[in-house]
Amino acid sequence: MANPLTPDVLVDPVVLTRALVDIESVSRDEKAIADCVEDVLRKAGHLSVRRLGNTVMARTRLGRGQRVILAGHLDTVPVNGNLPSTVVDDLIYGCGTADMKGGVALALHLAVTLPDPQYDVTYLFYESEEIDSEFNGLNLVAEEHPKWLRADFAVLLEPTFGAIEAGCQGTMQVDVRTRGRRAHTARAWRGVNAIHGAGEVLRRLETYHPRTVTIDGCTYREGLSAVRISGGVAGNVVPDECVVGVNLRFAPDRSEAQAAEHLREVFQGFDVEVTDSAPGALPGLDAAPAREFLAAVGIEPAAKLGWTDVARFAALGIPALNYGPGDPSLAHAADEHVEIGKIRDGAATLYRWLAP
Amino acid sequence: MANPLTPDVLVDPVVLTRALVDIESVSRDEKAIADCVEDVLRKAGHLSVRRLGNTVMARTRLGRGQRVILAGHLDTVPVNGNLPSTVVDDLIYGCGTADMKGGVALALHLAVTLPDPQYDVTYLFYESEEIDSEFNGLNLVAEEHPKWLRADFAVLLEPTFGAIEAGCQGTMQVDVRTRGRRAHTARAWRGVNAIHGAGEVLRRLETYHPRTVTIDGCTYREGLSAVRISGGVAGNVVPDECVVGVNLRFAPDRSEAQAAEHLREVFQGFDVEVTDSAPGALPGLDAAPAREFLAAVGIEPAAKLGWTDVARFAALGIPALNYGPGDPSLAHAADEHVEIGKIRDGAATLYRWLAP
Repeated sequence: MANPLTPDVLVDPVVLTRALVDIESVSRDEKAIADCVEDVLRKAGHLSVRRLGNTVMARTRLGRGQRVILAGHLDTVPVNGNLPSTVVDDLIYGCGTADMKGGVALALHLAVTLPDPQYDVTYLFYESEEIDSEFNGLNLVAEEHPKWLRADFAVLLEPTFGAIEAGCQGTMQVDVRTRGRRAHTARAWRGVNAIHGAGEVLRRLETYHPRTVTIDGCTYREGLSAVRISGGVAGNVVPDECVVGVNLRFAPDRSEAQAAEHLREVFQGFDVEVTDSAPGALPGLDAAPAREFLAAVGIEPAAKLGWTDVARFAALGIPALNYGPGDPSLAHAADEHVEIGKIRDGAATLYRWLAP
Repeated sequence: MANPLTPDVLVDPVVLTRALVDIESVSRDEKAIADCVEDVLRKAGHLSVRRLGNTVMARTRLGRGQRVILAGHLDTVPVNGNLPSTVVDDLIYGCGTADMKGGVALALHLAVTLPDPQYDVTYLFYESEEIDSEFNGLNLVAEEHPKWLRADFAVLLEPTFGAIEAGCQGTMQVDVRTRGRRAHTARAWRGVNAIHGAGEVLRRLETYHPRTVTIDGCTYREGLSAVRISGGVAGNVVPDECVVGVNLRFAPDRSEAQAAEHLREVFQGFDVEVTDSAPGALPGLDAAPAREFLAAVGIEPAAKLGWTDVARFAALGIPALNYGPGDPSLAHAADEHVEIGKIRDGAATLYRWLAP
């Protein structure tokens, strides 16, 4: 197949977005798009290129004092009758337009057209972000080639509709368990009802006041929610166990250990078991490249409430934020689309920030 | 097969108990025992005998002013390595000894040896009590031949260890449902958590004070128990529905409609749906045959807390109670047994009551 990412296409991030969208790349099937991306990066003489699986890394080696990362995933969720792309007025429709080939196009466009950025830049186009983290290209690079990820600041081009979403909240799942003693319900007083006992757990959830925490101007709103409850043996048996599944979303000033400790305090007197957990990420907007990036975009950052790969950069000690042209509420939708204006704005902003 | 229920066997209720136990009769496999029972009843000239499936009915037609029923089921739960019967000291071991061939033996012994009772007597030996009620012989007779069940009073020879257990409590299952609105747990404040909302349902269960009701000297202790709880969509979703399954055991002074009304009051403000229900049975100890029966036994009646076929008689307007030689706590156990002394006591008591 001739590479559709020709020089004519690469100079226009809008045309490039469409070209990338039209290379189907559902998770675990990214070889074609990675080949095309690697090919054009290798043709740019100012970049040094490496590959791991279907993840492609390219970087400048200009000896600048600081290095920044521009990163985007190449994969999409399954196609949903929305390929090839179409254009209606100012909108490009198609699988991956918002999440996140519009963002990938910005990075690839800069990579090949800006040979002398003011910082050294590492471009990372990675595989399998939309599925289980064992396949995540960013994760695999962190394990196999951690040096590829050395940097002072990272921009993840996930859809934010042109806003800056900094850091992210952590998430923790716990099971809170009550125990009782079985009995026949005709003689219920001989037993101890574990479901009745869970009333106190729900009472604490109802009366819980979640914190609101502001860090570097970003406001994080925590939350504690029952997400599952189960218990019961039979219609005529006083139940001896009830389990309440609880999800805590916690601001990035708490570590996972602190979050777990907090939940043990909230549910003191009950059996609390952590079943899953992912750390948050501090916004980390103090570094010079971050401050200049904020100035270039010209709007105040907001807190990212959901969990994104920003947290993987944070775990490596690299401040990171989300910034991309797509509308996050359209991600994974059949009518997914991206505004051409947002792509042009994004390209101009990144150029303003990185140009010498 | 020669009928093991010979005249020599029929005159001794202890020997008769063993003979009945040794005719295996697991539910839905009662033809052999029903044939033997029908055969000996037909040989007794003072009885008029009818059969429906494997249920055998025999009655006197002496023109007495009142008629009583003695009833017992012929089936047992599955054999559990406990046949044929064995005797150790004063105990007969084997499947069905307690539940309830000891009781059946009392009725069958009286049927063939007492030609002139002071009341007309209807003896009912019925099939499939231990399984789903669609197979229950008493139920089938009530539908097909309701006249067979005309009587002023009934004694069900279920195991009570020689006590009188009168009436029975009703039971009702309801689903109490809370509703909310889904949201991502990272933005939990946009949703309404239906599991948190169930906290109020559990609070009402915790603080509920069940009634204790005394009727005809029998004390019924009600109970309200959560028996099941379920809710939850996914680990990151505020759930929009939670269902608490609740079992009410209610004294027989409430009808099913009144019990349902009571539950709607207890859970006012929530969606309450009745999913299953069976009425209780008043002890009904006012009728002359009942009063004379109590005098013959010579002990105070106690309330039956579980549900038994007594309620089926009550539904037909016939006061009924449980009275049998077996120990109810041994029913369905592998080491099921019956005390020989309790069989002899029971036979003497019934004779004292029914002899002219």
